[in-house]
Amino acid sequence: MVGVNDKINVGMVGYKFMGKAHSHAYKDVGMFFEPAADVVMKAICGRDEQGVKAAADKFGWESYETDWRKMVARDDIDFVDINAPSDAHKEITLAAIAAGKHVFCEKPLALNLADGREMLEAAEKAGVKHAVCFNYRFLPAVQLAKQIIDEGRLGEIHHYRATYLQDWLVDPNTPMAWRLKKEVAGSGAHGDINAHSIDLARFLIGEFDRVVGHNRTFVKERPIATDAAGGLSAGAGSSSQKDQVTVDDATGFLADFKNGAMGMFVASRFAAGRKNHNTFEIHGSKGSLRWDLEKLNELEVYFREDEPNLAGFRRILATESTHKYAGNWWPTGHIIGYEHAFVHIVYEFVQHIKTGSPFAPTFYDGVKCQEVLEAVDLSIERGSWVGIDEV
Amino acid sequence: MVGVNDKINVGMVGYKFMGKAHSHAYKDVGMFFEPAADVVMKAICGRDEQGVKAAADKFGWESYETDWRKMVARDDIDFVDINAPSDAHKEITLAAIAAGKHVFCEKPLALNLADGREMLEAAEKAGVKHAVCFNYRFLPAVQLAKQIIDEGRLGEIHHYRATYLQDWLVDPNTPMAWRLKKEVAGSGAHGDINAHSIDLARFLIGEFDRVVGHNRTFVKERPIATDAAGGLSAGAGSSSQKDQVTVDDATGFLADFKNGAMGMFVASRFAAGRKNHNTFEIHGSKGSLRWDLEKLNELEVYFREDEPNLAGFRRILATESTHKYAGNWWPTGHIIGYEHAFVHIVYEFVQHIKTGSPFAPTFYDGVKCQEVLEAVDLSIERGSWVGIDEV
Amino acid sequence: MVGVNDKINVGMVGYKFMGKAHSHAYKDVGMFFEPAADVVMKAICGRDEQGVKAAADKFGWESYETDWRKMVARDDIDFVDINAPSDAHKEITLAAIAAGKHVFCEKPLALNLADGREMLEAAEKAGVKHAVCFNYRFLPAVQLAKQIIDEGRLGEIHHYRATYLQDWLVDPNTPMAWRLKKEVAGSGAHGDINAHSIDLARFLIGEFDRVVGHNRTFVKERPIATDAAGGLSAGAGSSSQKDQVTVDDATGFLADFKNGAMGMFVASRFAAGRKNHNTFEIHGSKGSLRWDLEKLNELEVYFREDEPNLAGFRRILATESTHKYAGNWWPTGHIIGYEHAFVHIVYEFVQHIKTGSPFAPTFYDGVKCQEVLEAVDLSIERGSWVGIDEV
Amino acid sequence: MVGVNDKINVGMVGYKFMGKAHSHAYKDVGMFFEPAADVVMKAICGRDEQGVKAAADKFGWESYETDWRKMVARDDIDFVDINAPSDAHKEITLAAIAAGKHVFCEKPLALNLADGREMLEAAEKAGVKHAVCFNYRFLPAVQLAKQIIDEGRLGEIHHYRATYLQDWLVDPNTPMAWRLKKEVAGSGAHGDINAHSIDLARFLIGEFDRVVGHNRTFVKERPIATDAAGGLSAGAGSSSQKDQVTVDDATGFLADFKNGAMGMFVASRFAAGRKNHNTFEIHGSKGSLRWDLEKLNELEVYFREDEPNLAGFRRILATESTHKYAGNWWPTGHIIGYEHAFVHIVYEFVQHIKTGSPFAPTFYDGVKCQEVLEAVDLSIERGSWVGIDEV
Repeated sequence: MVGVNDKINVGMVGYKFMGKAHSHAYKDVGMFFEPAADVVMKAICGRDEQGVKAAADKFGWESYETDWRKMVARDDIDFVDINAPSDAHKEITLAAIAAGKHVFCEKPLALNLADGREMLEAAEKAGVKHAVCFNYRFLPAVQLAKQIIDEGRLGEIHHYRATYLQDWLVDPNTPMAWRLKKEVAGSGAHGDINAHSIDLARFLIGEFDRVVGHNRTFVKERPIATDAAGGLSAGAGSSSQKDQVTVDDATGFLADFKNGAMGMFVASRFAAGRKNHNTFEIHGSKGSLRWDLEKLNELEVYFREDEPNLAGFRRILATESTHKYAGNWWPTGHIIGYEHAFVHIVYEFVQHIKTGSPFAPTFYDGVKCQEVLEAVDLSIERGSWVGIDEV
Repeated sequence: MVGVNDKINVGMVGYKFMGKAHSHAYKDVGMFFEPAADVVMKAICGRDEQGVKAAADKFGWESYETDWRKMVARDDIDFVDINAPSDAHKEITLAAIAAGKHVFCEKPLALNLADGREMLEAAEKAGVKHAVCFNYRFLPAVQLAKQIIDEGRLGEIHHYRATYLQDWLVDPNTPMAWRLKKEVAGSGAHGDINAHSIDLARFLIGEFDRVVGHNRTFVKERPIATDAAGGLSAGAGSSSQKDQVTVDDATGFLADFKNGAMGMFVASRFAAGRKNHNTFEIHGSKGSLRWDLEKLNELEVYFREDEPNLAGFRRILATESTHKYAGNWWPTGHIIGYEHAFVHIVYEFVQHIKTGSPFAPTFYDGVKCQEVLEAVDLSIERGSWVGIDEV
Repeated sequence: MVGVNDKINVGMVGYKFMGKAHSHAYKDVGMFFEPAADVVMKAICGRDEQGVKAAADKFGWESYETDWRKMVARDDIDFVDINAPSDAHKEITLAAIAAGKHVFCEKPLALNLADGREMLEAAEKAGVKHAVCFNYRFLPAVQLAKQIIDEGRLGEIHHYRATYLQDWLVDPNTPMAWRLKKEVAGSGAHGDINAHSIDLARFLIGEFDRVVGHNRTFVKERPIATDAAGGLSAGAGSSSQKDQVTVDDATGFLADFKNGAMGMFVASRFAAGRKNHNTFEIHGSKGSLRWDLEKLNELEVYFREDEPNLAGFRRILATESTHKYAGNWWPTGHIIGYEHAFVHIVYEFVQHIKTGSPFAPTFYDGVKCQEVLEAVDLSIERGSWVGIDEV
Repeated sequence: MVGVNDKINVGMVGYKFMGKAHSHAYKDVGMFFEPAADVVMKAICGRDEQGVKAAADKFGWESYETDWRKMVARDDIDFVDINAPSDAHKEITLAAIAAGKHVFCEKPLALNLADGREMLEAAEKAGVKHAVCFNYRFLPAVQLAKQIIDEGRLGEIHHYRATYLQDWLVDPNTPMAWRLKKEVAGSGAHGDINAHSIDLARFLIGEFDRVVGHNRTFVKERPIATDAAGGLSAGAGSSSQKDQVTVDDATGFLADFKNGAMGMFVASRFAAGRKNHNTFEIHGSKGSLRWDLEKLNELEVYFREDEPNLAGFRRILATESTHKYAGNWWPTGHIIGYEHAFVHIVYEFVQHIKTGSPFAPTFYDGVKCQEVLEAVDLSIERGSWVGIDEV
């Protein structure tokens, strides 16, 4: 049984953009929620001692490590949070599982489907809890979308369209970053941001049946960066030397869903003026809804059952106490921001570990997402539709 | 030379939705523009005498005919406007050309590509002027988009996305209409509204290279209508008998453009709450723009060259006297509506006939659009990409 | 009894901006509506023969006059439309009434309240029909707002806020125009555009009780224009000589309504970037609504009775066949423009004359609007609240 | 000189809505900013021991007190944060100052102007640092607005309009709260939310010259609440007994600014559907801007100097690293929420205390705001304009 003073100790690998977002979640979750255990920021881990020590101080971790193997082995760690670059996910995950730790892994779960499946199998065999950080599921407006669909308020789903558009690469002088190398990142816009769109689609309307896509690398070589920022912004220092970009700048694809819906997805880092334009629009036989991460507190909904004279897309501000998670923050109309989704997913994962409450997205969802990503890549090679079952 | 009192006589076949919109354009063009000849509404033609006579009175035509062959042969007709159902376009067009008339034809130009090419060849051989009524090119905001792109203000084009979404078929009780029978309409949402999106894409950024698509007929049979309305709205009377829908309710497709841009298109009559959501969004290396027919006076534009602190999508109200066509109407801020585009295209076509001024879209554009439509259909059959050159 | 071939002959004084808008309405009304009589554009009148002759040709009037006295006296005129500058309204109106004509007068009805009351009294005594052209009442979205309020869907009204913002005077080099001289125009932004807001408020929620205001003339002298355009745009030719602006550039005021609602109004020609930003927002005990002339087909509505989770402002596109007047134009989603409101008011006034159907706004509404305008001016003089009953 | 390990100890009075928001700021500021001293959450104070103890645990305070006199006297407190109900501000502030503490006080500074002036004088005499928590100044989009105006990009200011609209009282069954009693809260919507609008106006365009207003208490008695929530939401438990509402539900007023601009303000808790609609719109001779707290990351800006064809309101997403404070959080496009403003003001106040960096808003700004609030109330009594110098 979980006691009032129960604690759960976190060890985290990675301390850049995602490391900061996750740290914030551990720091704030106890203030706004009532998790079944107090979350303790036990240890943070990174290869550069100076960097990781500074992060530990700044973010409020009790200790730091420079070798993830050591951290994973520590007795005082209950679950391991992995937000290091994607090529490190598998090895750390398998070691953590072997050490009996629960694992909370950033997306994409793995560099490829085979690795992802191996990780899922290992986690299931070991009986540890596992999560992939598809954080956007946990926003109040997205939860509301899910509820509306699950209650049948949209009827049968006909159309699903998603965009995830950024523009941080449209400047050809934006320097290289690990996110632009296939061997580290797995893929570019596709694995980084289409992954989010694919997960939201699965969350909201169900499984993919087949896909066909196309992609581009608009700028094929870039100056080498002179520092090592997290790499989601232009303007970092750069040298005159250039390096090859080996991932996609943009990937688009069509999808057929198992429920018969038509899907359309595009991810790009070349959409001038679109900063974090993660959107979905869904049309069903009874209504429609639309969401945009840049206005993440809002959900637009249309119900055909409204009086004909008075039907129109409603702009719902999902800040009411009746909206999931919103009541834990501020009174109605006081919006929350990007990082709050991490607080919510951390809360749910802690509940899952401590109380056995249902939780998704797990590694299973990471694998299912990876299947779609790879099917799209295969369709690009083949120039034709590829069934998800084929990968 | 065109004299002050020069006249141009129009004969029009069709008198439903499009017939009304065209009639209005002929009626109003001389009031707001200075065409090189006075447009005379000489004769309107339809098979149902009672109906066509009423339309002639209502819309202000000098005379009416019930046999288009007779009208096409009349000496007092300078150009023939064809907005009868699509399956009649070819025969009337060829007869009009044979009679030496200029032809202004509604889209889609023909039921299929072969017919379209035959019509184009005939028109060119005869030396008559010809137009396809892709009216949306002629809106001030769309003209502004064209100007921005042509001036290089968006740079190299990376992305083109279009939607044309309506919802008049989402109710399964919406009755049958000629637009839902393949033998009359050629196709459904694809030929009716994707055709507009394809034409706008060609107008704005150039030719298609290859496409791959999918489509759906969500509701496969519908009640037979008890009257014969133009068919763009629900709620007409219907009987208990049903008829097969033989066209697509929705078609989506990916495109590669010859200039390297990635394209994404969807047309649907099943997008609940979207009434006439004809949109495009274009991203280039220097900026982006976005347009929506439901807000047809507005253009959203983003320029990367704006000061970083102050860059943002601008909502331009294209009602300034400096915006093409806008100055012919009302002072700044006084918006125009849907039907104004027809006034503009009629103005330009009359100028083309009378002064030889450049004009597009001609039958050539009708054929190019049809090529893309058919390539998409072929890609659906094949399950793979199809080059435009293949059709 | 009104016969099928019944006609109603219009004589119109004025041929600039409003003359064009009214002419268009007479030209189009019979095509889209079924008025009880055919509207005949019998005669147009202006002092400058060349100008008025050109307008007659362009707009489609059968004849022209250069002396309004002559036109008003013509036997073949049934009603007189007056859209000459405001200082001419009274004299022409009284003469028209004396000649037994119905009168359709642009706003403001008169230069001052006393004149307006005299005109109303004359019209009532003579038993002629009379109208003031508060055209915005006749837009589908505004009609929908009225219907929602009248049905009690907003409950008790608490707040009414209106803006009417333009920016055509913010450039100090914009030349003088008759609209900027008190002796011709009566007032500036106040009488020109606050008048519209006052009329809409009276139409929607009822009578004013008291007001208090302030105003400004930001630019006190302007270059003299070298031509004589209608004067709603910058950039006309100007000389180096200057003339005094004797009207307000902007007027704002608070209001208490007789029903207890709080009101807030501002009209300005100095609101940079706002072109025709005629808006109202209304809050009641059961809901709210918002409208903006620059998006005139849309109405935003909020109902408190919606499920708490799903309540939000609905963006209603008032283009359904169930929306008043909208069904006379195009299918759903095909928007109408500024000039359509004139078609609707002309239709209603013709019905009123020919069938006795109810009609407002009449001269009574012109007088009631003038009362509020003058009460605001008096409050500015006094520096305190002024009851409407005091003027 | 400030050392690396320098600390600043906070003692806070109050632990409801504002106490939570302030606690969060103290908790997070060190993670995202580099304050000149580490902020230590030393002690929280409230009358109800159980409540304050729970808050201390939940929010992360080192200790708690139930008597503010005791806390204010503690040697280990450097500055006192006061967010207890408004009627307690003065006494606690004066005691804190007497104890040599710096003071960070929630708005409104005092129940009336005389009290505010006394507090300001005491603080200045004692030489302690003082702040009033007008938090909205510290949002990136508001800072950008300030910068645009200060750089002269809007030119001479002509118009300032603000709304602060909520709807948590529109339900007559929403129970009583301390915010609805004049003796505790000072005033209603006026002091609570017009205060924010007044401060933003002073911050952005300067001092008020004179005002005239009106107000309403739409629902004059309400059920007595059965618990003691912070009181910004409906739905709390209530009994059948009723109590008198002694503050305004809504207050609106006109203003003349010293720089000649016209102002218009309205605050209401009865604006159905408006949850936290704190907006300003400013028009100057060179441009305009608009902001809305419900979309707090966005600023809309219009520049007249833009090319005429391309001018339009820009929607700027103030999440670039060049936008003040934004770079401390997440990459571009990742929005922040309501509570972030408190982090920023706390950061600036700590810098002010520790480094002497300039800081506003101080008690001076609290007094200036109170002057406007009281001048409005006086104008309501008198029914006429009141100069700010008169109060």
